[in-house]
Formats: sequence, C-alpha cells, structure tokens
Amino acid sequence: MISGSVFVGASEEQSGDKFRGVNPATGETLSPDFCAATGDQVARACKLADEAFPVFSALAPPDRAAFLERAADEIMALGDELIERSTAESGLPRARLEGERGRTVGQLRMFAAHLKKGEWLHVAINPAMPDRDPLPRADLRRRHVAVGPVAVFGASNFPLAFSVAGGDTASGLAAGCPVVVKGHPAHPGTGELVARALRTAVAACGLPDGVFSYLPGPSNELGAALVSDPHIRAVGFTGSRPGGLALMRVASARPVPIPVFAEMSSINPVLLLPGALAARADALGEAFVGSLTLGSGQFCTNPGLVLALRGEALDRFLASAAKALEGAPPTPMLTAGIHDSYGGGVATLDAHKDVTAVGRSAETGGVNCAQPALYSCTAKAFLSDPALGAEVFGPASLVVACDSLDEMAAMIEGLEGQLTATVHLEDDDKSALAELLPKLERKAGRILANGWPTGVEVCDAMVHGGPYPATSDGQSTSVGTLAIERFLRPVCFQDIPDDLLPPPLRNANPWNVPRHVDGDPKRT
Amino acid sequence: MISGSVFVGASEEQSGDKFRGVNPATGETLSPDFCAATGDQVARACKLADEAFPVFSALAPPDRAAFLERAADEIMALGDELIERSTAESGLPRARLEGERGRTVGQLRMFAAHLKKGEWLHVAINPAMPDRDPLPRADLRRRHVAVGPVAVFGASNFPLAFSVAGGDTASGLAAGCPVVVKGHPAHPGTGELVARALRTAVAACGLPDGVFSYLPGPSNELGAALVSDPHIRAVGFTGSRPGGLALMRVASARPVPIPVFAEMSSINPVLLLPGALAARADALGEAFVGSLTLGSGQFCTNPGLVLALRGEALDRFLASAAKALEGAPPTPMLTAGIHDSYGGGVATLDAHKDVTAVGRSAETGGVNCAQPALYSCTAKAFLSDPALGAEVFGPASLVVACDSLDEMAAMIEGLEGQLTATVHLEDDDKSALAELLPKLERKAGRILANGWPTGVEVCDAMVHGGPYPATSDGQSTSVGTLAIERFLRPVCFQDIPDDLLPPPLRNANPWNVPRHVDGDPKRT
Repeated sequence: MISGSVFVGASEEQSGDKFRGVNPATGETLSPDFCAATGDQVARACKLADEAFPVFSALAPPDRAAFLERAADEIMALGDELIERSTAESGLPRARLEGERGRTVGQLRMFAAHLKKGEWLHVAINPAMPDRDPLPRADLRRRHVAVGPVAVFGASNFPLAFSVAGGDTASGLAAGCPVVVKGHPAHPGTGELVARALRTAVAACGLPDGVFSYLPGPSNELGAALVSDPHIRAVGFTGSRPGGLALMRVASARPVPIPVFAEMSSINPVLLLPGALAARADALGEAFVGSLTLGSGQFCTNPGLVLALRGEALDRFLASAAKALEGAPPTPMLTAGIHDSYGGGVATLDAHKDVTAVGRSAETGGVNCAQPALYSCTAKAFLSDPALGAEVFGPASLVVACDSLDEMAAMIEGLEGQLTATVHLEDDDKSALAELLPKLERKAGRILANGWPTGVEVCDAMVHGGPYPATSDGQSTSVGTLAIERFLRPVCFQDIPDDLLPPPLRNANPWNVPRHVDGDPKRT
Repeated sequence: MISGSVFVGASEEQSGDKFRGVNPATGETLSPDFCAATGDQVARACKLADEAFPVFSALAPPDRAAFLERAADEIMALGDELIERSTAESGLPRARLEGERGRTVGQLRMFAAHLKKGEWLHVAINPAMPDRDPLPRADLRRRHVAVGPVAVFGASNFPLAFSVAGGDTASGLAAGCPVVVKGHPAHPGTGELVARALRTAVAACGLPDGVFSYLPGPSNELGAALVSDPHIRAVGFTGSRPGGLALMRVASARPVPIPVFAEMSSINPVLLLPGALAARADALGEAFVGSLTLGSGQFCTNPGLVLALRGEALDRFLASAAKALEGAPPTPMLTAGIHDSYGGGVATLDAHKDVTAVGRSAETGGVNCAQPALYSCTAKAFLSDPALGAEVFGPASLVVACDSLDEMAAMIEGLEGQLTATVHLEDDDKSALAELLPKLERKAGRILANGWPTGVEVCDAMVHGGPYPATSDGQSTSVGTLAIERFLRPVCFQDIPDDLLPPPLRNANPWNVPRHVDGDPKRT
C-alpha cells in the first residue's frame, strides 16, 4: 500500500529525487523509495488549493464536519499497518503510537463537533437604524471566514498527532482552508498512509481535489518553496527554532507577507516550592524523571529546567532523581540527527565549568539511544550565561539552585517565552505562588500545579503556545479548539441584500448558529 | 493650558528639541513650542508601562471600564479649546471635529460596555475528570489576558478618533495594556490636550502612573526607538504604507519580535454594476464625488478606484461626476507634506499615456488645498501597469472601463488587499454580484452595497482591516469591539488551586462573566 508517491490533489505522482525512511532503533533504511516533491508539484498543489478554496470555505459546518469525521474513520481504517510503519520509522513504542493515533482522530472529531456549534463563525450583527439622528446606521453583519490555503509542516516528534493529519491540518481544514502538507522525511511511510486516508476522505465527500495535497521530502528548499507560493495564506509548523525562524524569514520576505504559526522550542521550567520540596522531595524526584524521559525526552513540553531553593530538601530531590535516572533505560531518538544534536547538548553541559553532573542512566543504550542525564548549577551561574537556557532536545534537564524566592523570581524574569511553567506546591507555598504567578503568566501559555508538563490535553481550555520564542505568535495555540482561530479572518457585510449574504448572516439564520445582535447573544 | 510637554507617566517634562504645529489652511506656525520626546523618555515611559502592567491588566472589568468612561468625560471636559486647536492644526471644519470627538469618546464608552459583558475574556473550562479511563483529565481553565505594554502611533488624518485616545489606544487600554503613544507632529496641541485628559483620568482612578504616557515628536527615530523597546509587546499604527512597513521591519528585527497592527493603505474599489449604472448613473456620479471629496479625500476608505462596464451609462456617470467635481471646492489638506504628495500623485496620472483626465474642480484653492480630480483608463491599461493601483492619498480617483464582467472579475483578482469594496446594484445585478462576491471577500475586510465606503461605523460587526497591504495583519480590525482581540493572548491554568486562579476562572465566578464549560455556554 505504500508506494512512495507525492499527492498533488487527487493525482498520485512518482517523480523527483528518491529518499528512504530509516528505523532509528536499528539504523536500517526502510523500503520503498519515496519521491521528494518538486517545485512544479508545489506550484500545482498550491494552485489546486486556491481553486478549491471558494467551495471548501463556503461549506455548511455539518458538511465540513462530516469530512473531518470521515478522515478520522479512514485513518482508523488503515489499521495495524499504520502502527507498524510508524513504530518502525520513529523508534517509539507501539502503545505510544496507538495512543497518538487515538489523539489524532480525536482531534479531527473534536473539530467536527466544534464546527457544528458555530461559535467559531463569530457572527455579530448590528441591524440598520434608518431613523438614527444625526445619521442613519447601515445594516452591518460580520462573520469569520477561512484565510485561504494553509501550508502545514509535519513534525518529527509526533508522527501522527503533529504531522500529516495533526492539529495544524485538522484546525486548518476545520476553518475551511485547503491544506498542503510538507511531509517530514523522518516518517515518509507513515505520512503517505495518512495522506492516503485524507485523499480517500476528500473523494468520498465529493470535495474539490485541492482540499488536500501531500508533498514529502527532505530538503529545506521544498519547505521554502511552499511558504513562498503566492496562493499560501498562512503556515503551521512544529519543530526546531532554526527551522521555525527560517520559515518566518521566508514568509515575511514575500511580496505579500503571511503569518507563520511556529511552535519552536521551550525548556518548560518546573518550580519546586519550599513546602512541596520539604514534604515530598523523594517522590518528586522520581516522578520528575518519569516526565523527563517520556518519549525519549522528545516532547515539546519536556521539563528541561528545574528551579528550587538550595538545601537539604533539594539534595534529597537530586538524590532521588539520580537514582531514578540510573535505572531509566536509554531509548532510541527519532532520527540520527536528533541523536547527534542531543549528544552535542549534553557534551556542552558536561564541559561547562559551572555545571555539575547529578546523574545519568547506567546504560548508554543502542543505536541512536539517548542516555538520560541530569545537571545542576546555581542561579548566579545560570543568569550569567544565557547559553544555559538553550533547549537540549531530549531527556536532559538542568536543576538550578536558588538562594531565595527573590532569586527564583529573578530567574523567571530572565527566561525566554515558554510553552509551559509548572509549580509544585503545598498549602504553605500559596503566598509564594501568588507572588510568582503574574511573572509566570507573562512567560508561558500554560501554568500547571502539582503535575508534569508532558501531557497536553486536547480540549477547549488548552493553550499549547506561549510568548516568543516558544512560538512565533504568542497569541495563538496549536492544540485545542482555539487553534482554529489562527486560520480565520473577519469580514463585514454592509447593506448586502439578504439573499446574497453568507448563510450565517441571513435573517433566517439557516445554519442556526449562535449570533450576537447589538452585542447580545441570540440564536435567531 | 497647552505647555508643549512630554508626559512620562505622571511626569510632565520639558526637554529635547522643539517643534511647532502648523495651520495647514494658512501655512502659519502655531505657538507654543513643543518638546520632542527623547530616547531617555521613551525608555522611562516603557519601563513605567511595564511596571503598571500587573496591576492594570488584573483590574476587574468594571474598574477598567470606569477608567475608560472617566477618560471620555475628561476629553469632553476639555471643551471648545480642543475643537479650536484641532481645527487650527488640521484644517478640518469644526463640525467634522465635533463629530470626531463624539466618535472618540463613543469608542471609549463602547469598550467600557464591552468590558463589562466579559465575553472578551474568552473563558473556557474543562473540569477535571479524575476517573477517566485510561488517564484522568486535569482541571483546565483558560482566559485571555493583555499582551503587555502597547505602542500606539497617532494618525494625521483623524487627530482625535485615530490618535492619542483613538481606537488603538481605547482597545489597548480596554484589553488591560498600558499604552505609550507616539504623538503625531501634525497636531501636537490637540495631542497634548487629549493626553492631559487621559493623565487626569489615570490619576482620578488611582491607577499606576505607567498606564499612559505621551511622547510627541516629528522624527522617525522616536517611533523606531519606541517599537524597539523591549517592554513593548504590540504596536498599533494608522498611516502611510512606507511608515507601516518601516515599523514592521523594526518590530520583526527585535530579539523578541512583536506584532504590528498597521492600517496602511487602500484604494477601496467601487463596482458600478450594469443595472445600477443604467438606472442611476447621474445620481451615482454626484454621490460618488461627495464621498471622494469628504475630508479633502483623506479618509482611509476614500474611493480611489471605480470599476464599470464601458458604454453610454458609464459616460453619463463620468459626465455627472465631472460636473459635480467642477463645483467641488478645493479644501486644505492636513499637512504641506501630504499636499505635496497629492500633487505628485495627480501629476503622475496627468502624465500617464493611458490615462484620461475626466474632470477636476474649477478652482485650484488656497494654501495646501487639494484640487479634486477624476481620471479614467481601460482595464487593459490598468492591468498592464501596477503603478495605476497605487494609492493617491487625497480627492483623486480613477475610473476603469471594463469590456465585460469577466474583465471586471479579472480586475478584482489583480487588486491588492483593501479595507473596503463597494458595490452598486439593482435586482438584475444580483447574479453578477453572486459571482463576484467570493472574489471581493478575499480582497477586502468590508463589503458594502449601494453606499459609499467613507463612513466607518463603530460597532461590533465593523471590520476596519483587510488583507495585506491594506493592513499588516488581515486577521484584525482597528475599529469596533473586535479591535480588543489584537491585544489579548490566551493562558491556560491546569490544576491551580481555586484561590490562586484569576477571578474569572474561580469556581464561584466572582466577576460573573460568561464562560464555556466543556464547550457549552454557562454563566455559573
């Protein structure tokens, strides 16, 4: 079933340079050959997307929802082939990928439900006031509509949930934007299978071909060509900071600049407040290592920085974490490149004069395996060397010992923008947290207590975003229903005849969506 | 009462280079001298804004609303001095400025009312599900919060409604962002009076000094320093395209890039559909000239382009417009620079080989007066020379004669992004408009029928924004309640103890704001 094809709309094509997937756990290349998409295919896919836009963006919510639900069904119908291939291409365990598949189809279904509720249209109506003095008011009606075709970059670390049919694709399609995916070269077979499922759903729902195209390939030029294409109106990306920044540069240099919603990097500070540390240092150390090593440390929300007050309780935490780390088995990383990069990051910490090695896994592991590692330093050392705040993608973390809560606050103020900030507290830490919370809020998109950042619930309230450089646009989220807002824009209609208005703005409200009339909610 | 001061928070300061306002209608400079803000003042104002942020952004909605209402009252309390000074500095008629003052205080009061409704907080709650299988769900609560201090650039063409206390300032303050205004040098006395009113309101409401600062000055360096300041988190701007693009470059080159919401340029196409033109060419010509010459053509929504099918009806429209133009008196423009620029734009059209002069005002007018002028060309000429699509800021417009509705559609597809698109139609034009409407919607933020674009109602449904380059961010509006969204970001709280949550997220909902719980609207 895996052919190595490029999908330009409904056209399954074989041309261009060839590349192969690799099993990172063994280092072996996997058949078959995959075709890298060409510049011509980029241009045709984007043109098809543009042609599909008027029909797709104007669909009634239940019709677009049905497409999303069909896409979810088709992904499930891929069956075990998808799990086996994604396991082979990612080195991640089967149970994780089964869970990730559930999350992926769950996202599609969540957006289908969200579409049907209709609030995403943001309908606001100010009826005409012909007798207003001194000037009459026109009839003004506004609703949000899709921005246009969207380019989505599949991420390496979630080959299903943040890739071909991941959150960016799901929210873009939900908004009514045709999507052109640049497939990640680390999981080309997985990508093709999912792309095939989406293609099947497009055809089954009778939608225009250009609603979805899939352009796999290993080159940066492919991605740059996609972001440069004049038909593309927005970009969704999850990946490295250099990658995100490069796409931002391409997007802002276009004759018509477009927004890039890039989720790029985060070290996700964890604050162990004094009461919590005193009460449960041992348990915290063990649980922390569980979060740190999850998925070989390759979560965007991996806890890469721990802040605590120096002292006996912190020593206990470190001892507990070191012990847990010693028994944590090294696990394969997603690619040889990521593994090399992790090795470089750890070597930098090992060599840093102000950094102490706290512990590491007793084993070094096999091919492309990351050896979990923990380090510590003082707040003064951290504050005097910005390089210590750089993300080390993988299961390594740095514990920073602070002299006081004031120094901890200064540490927070010195941090870059983050996806998450975590606090462990007991009741006697509440006043300290009350002081720190406003500072944390300016740094992170999600603040959590007495848990670990490495679970990102897909729901309405979730924010998976944060101030730059955690994301390019700190006013957005890439997970949860709010993610659809990235791909919508408002349009106002003034005195347009009722029968020419988009359905949600017509007097009869044929889509039966919630509306605001002169600022107050009404369904009719 | 006008002292020429800079306001760094509550500190009224006199230093720096001096400059003066000019009465454009006479060319005379106006006393007193005004101090241009210095780099040191920029830095101090932004630091104060940052310090004010935690308190100001956390105010309960009624408290921030009371401040906006007080600001409106203080502007009204300036009395006739404000109207006299703004008339002298802008060359605009008294009635216009009285109306603009009403709009300015109306905007502040509209945001006060909008704040109290609470929907702008976008509260979403997904309660904990401790027994969910296979994994429990944490308690997740999200609300929007201010992004941080905002820099606002006063516009020349609306010395009140788009300036010191204009829509950007009102929406920024409403969101909870301290605002640092860069005052426009074309109306320094007007700016100072309004700044003084805002300062009075800040003090009267017991708010931190840094909630509002006012930095007037003529130099581009001042604006660049403001946008570069690390405390500034977003920018609001209304002005020229070169000005907006320059600020976008500064903002994106920062170590931490920030969004610029710039409203930059638009030629606001007007489509005269065949039925409408046949039925009322004469009346349309006359009414068109009324819109074209309003405020000396210095509205962002000025109709600078007219599209119609060639033929007898269009000839009648042109004759009617030419006649109305002949009697339209030249009126002073806002500054000598704007007048010079208008002269250059008109000269380019006069000299263009494919452009025909249709008519102009019989008089040339006095100092800095713009002589209204109308031109025509064919669609082929327009499509072959992109320069004909450039905005000529002032009372000049270009009528493009199309051979067919298909050619008109091609004209629309070739246009840059616009603030508005206007259509004149009769019943027999409806099928033509149904074809054109999706194309218009991709080009403009507001589409209006059988009216003129030069009235921008301040209300919920208004969109005063549009695809680039009409604005830098085509997903936003600078007029209407939706403008507040530019200055908000979502933050999610996970398992945070109830007493530490922001009030709108607490179980008891002490602010009594509308909330969504598991996707459904609830007030409790």
